[in-house]
Amino acid sequence: MDAFFAPRSVAIAGASRSGMKLGNVPIANLQRFGYQGRIVPLNPDADEIMGLRAYPSIEDVEGGVDLAVAVIPREQILGFLESCWRAGVRNVLVTAAAFADADAEGARMQDEVAALAKRLSIRLMGPNSIGTINTASGFVTSIITLDPIPRGPISFVVQSGLFSAGFARWISSTQLHGAAKIACLGNKADIDELDVLAYLENDRDTEVIALHTEGTRDGRAFVELVSRISTTKPVVVLNAGRTPAGREATRSHTGAMAGSFEVFQGAASQAGAIAVESFGEMFDCAKALAYCPVPRGNGMGVVSVTGAGCSLTADACETRGLAVPSLSDDSLRYATEGMPEWATFSNPADIWAAIAAQGNGGAYYRLLRAMAMQDDVDILLAVYCVAPQFEFDVAEVMGRIASEFPGKPVLAVLLGGTAEDSRRWFESLEAARIPTYDSVERGVAAASALNRYAAWKRRHS
Amino acid sequence: MDAFFAPRSVAIAGASRSGMKLGNVPIANLQRFGYQGRIVPLNPDADEIMGLRAYPSIEDVEGGVDLAVAVIPREQILGFLESCWRAGVRNVLVTAAAFADADAEGARMQDEVAALAKRLSIRLMGPNSIGTINTASGFVTSIITLDPIPRGPISFVVQSGLFSAGFARWISSTQLHGAAKIACLGNKADIDELDVLAYLENDRDTEVIALHTEGTRDGRAFVELVSRISTTKPVVVLNAGRTPAGREATRSHTGAMAGSFEVFQGAASQAGAIAVESFGEMFDCAKALAYCPVPRGNGMGVVSVTGAGCSLTADACETRGLAVPSLSDDSLRYATEGMPEWATFSNPADIWAAIAAQGNGGAYYRLLRAMAMQDDVDILLAVYCVAPQFEFDVAEVMGRIASEFPGKPVLAVLLGGTAEDSRRWFESLEAARIPTYDSVERGVAAASALNRYAAWKRRHS
Repeated sequence: MDAFFAPRSVAIAGASRSGMKLGNVPIANLQRFGYQGRIVPLNPDADEIMGLRAYPSIEDVEGGVDLAVAVIPREQILGFLESCWRAGVRNVLVTAAAFADADAEGARMQDEVAALAKRLSIRLMGPNSIGTINTASGFVTSIITLDPIPRGPISFVVQSGLFSAGFARWISSTQLHGAAKIACLGNKADIDELDVLAYLENDRDTEVIALHTEGTRDGRAFVELVSRISTTKPVVVLNAGRTPAGREATRSHTGAMAGSFEVFQGAASQAGAIAVESFGEMFDCAKALAYCPVPRGNGMGVVSVTGAGCSLTADACETRGLAVPSLSDDSLRYATEGMPEWATFSNPADIWAAIAAQGNGGAYYRLLRAMAMQDDVDILLAVYCVAPQFEFDVAEVMGRIASEFPGKPVLAVLLGGTAEDSRRWFESLEAARIPTYDSVERGVAAASALNRYAAWKRRHS
Repeated sequence: MDAFFAPRSVAIAGASRSGMKLGNVPIANLQRFGYQGRIVPLNPDADEIMGLRAYPSIEDVEGGVDLAVAVIPREQILGFLESCWRAGVRNVLVTAAAFADADAEGARMQDEVAALAKRLSIRLMGPNSIGTINTASGFVTSIITLDPIPRGPISFVVQSGLFSAGFARWISSTQLHGAAKIACLGNKADIDELDVLAYLENDRDTEVIALHTEGTRDGRAFVELVSRISTTKPVVVLNAGRTPAGREATRSHTGAMAGSFEVFQGAASQAGAIAVESFGEMFDCAKALAYCPVPRGNGMGVVSVTGAGCSLTADACETRGLAVPSLSDDSLRYATEGMPEWATFSNPADIWAAIAAQGNGGAYYRLLRAMAMQDDVDILLAVYCVAPQFEFDVAEVMGRIASEFPGKPVLAVLLGGTAEDSRRWFESLEAARIPTYDSVERGVAAASALNRYAAWKRRHS
């Protein structure tokens, strides 16, 4: 699998001499990402492409390559595989679509491609795959123009090209959590999530795995593998095809578990996987699992500048299986110290009035600390309103709480604010590894992921 | 109620001569919003505040004022109400917190304030309210620094100050839908959502009402009023306190329906209200209802650049009571015209391959049109991936479909992209009044709001 993530050399079929065809994009990406390996464009009519020596065929490349990327039409794939075999190349990524994702003829051709690859002992990713990204080595195969992605603890194993397209651009532009490795598997004619999961199990850059799948070929193997990985790394799973309409849309015929969401979901949860229902929730939960310690229980301590934030957060906690324990006498005494006489707090705590009396930083610190002191509060969530009157060094206060209570995850929710202010608050919090969300529901969903993983680990240790 | 949204004159108690105290913020906001009425600062020790003539007491203001805003501590409210009465002022907004939202003493004081206001025939908004915004006249009472908000079709009636704080800043910075009127009702000692809803029923600037409440004092009156309003304007309702924990957090003791979410929700839905579960969903649905025609049924036509988008959208549709009808032979014939031979489409349609063959604009236009032509497709949803390779004039194509099929709502989902690209795509779509969302789940939730409102209207016309 290393050849697909960290090849020392890569050949790309389908690059054009002039202009920027699909086949040129991976080369441009590799150059922009600072990939240090050898890049070999293949083109029958060119000696040089994008400053690199080009070869007419992969068979002409002296020394061979670790990986071949085929950005060529579906009709040419069989021939290309044979060339690869003759050249000693045993790893091929096929980007071409119009196989099983298209018509019956495409499905037949995919079977043929898979059978040939197997016969030639070639490991094949795709077809209809835009391949892999490895932020550690700057390796990237995407046919969508990307900017370098910061290194980070989360790896993505997905069936959708989105993660090496729009989502990759979103991460590099705005998400400080970055990524470790990304694999967009496409039609999974050969390499599937089981191969990549097994590889990531031992990948030192990967601390959290986010998996998106529309079905798996071998349910038992999946459960065994995820159970094993979950003892050391959380695995977040988004399984599309939850409903009959969704299943119809996946047109997934990959295996026994594909047809029954409930069975898959149940088995995955038994195996420790954290089930999510959308790409947004997948990112939200993976980030919390990457940034935060594993909590000891499901008790939430919530501090909010708005009463509405309190009730909506409490609603969301109850819906997500999280408790909101009452404040103990000790906590309440500590919380009200130095506050106006009329100040009363519960959990969730509405600290609007406390802020008016004590300022933002003081009020949030005192209330979060009062809650964190309690044994039955395991996870802290602070809800902020982004506006000039509420501005203070949020990251410093949250970071202080996190370091005083190292076993307790600390999460932030930012409501409203101008684009610029929200961005600034968000960046300062995330730089301090405080996972930050734009709604109480998203924050609570992430807290729930922490709790579910923690509960599974307690049962399996 | 007009005095609270469009007063010709407003007095503000609590403004300071120097510096920017809470009481100065409404004055600064009024000046920044371009309010043309008379602004009267009240301060016993100042002749002038922020360039405006100040008066020692409201009783000294010749001619009186339409509205008094009391940004003063809770102990001073009773005396202030008596001054207002003597000055002939019959409308007062009380921003002070620490009433029923704080301790028992605060609750007792709130009862006293409410009783006195009633005896003096003063209508009172609050306490613990940051009041109103009227974008048409530039009227604003918020004690949070705001920028002018663009005029728009949605009015907000809420219990949370967030809507005149962080959310107001978010709208003015990023949300092209703007707002008509905003009322943040706080503790509702006198004026409550029933008063404001009745006012907005006949407000020509208000086309959609978004309501957030933690309970209503008179369930029967609420249902009657919302039923009547819903025949002409959609009412989106977020009721906090869905769960026991949420209800505990609301500490809401305002009426018979407060305690039972199911009863409230059921009654509200019977009355045509569109129930939502988060602030985000509230904004999402209100925007769709403001921009789009009322659809004729629940059939969705979905076009997505990603197969994952197809299955996740189908899942979300089924979960939300929306149908995803199969493509008719006519539609399929039209869809595949000029496409590569292998191109096959269903609904949701994965058009990745069609884009490769025909370009973005052509592929999206043809597929959306193929679906819109079908009688059983009532709502169109296009899912885009924001990346350079997928760039085209999205707004033009979506706008063309919307104008060719004027009875069919057209919604967009933008996945991923850099902050800058997403912003640019979003703005061009929303400028064309295509409601735009950042996930398929949010887009489908908005489509579901359109469908639920349409279904209610069909039953009640």
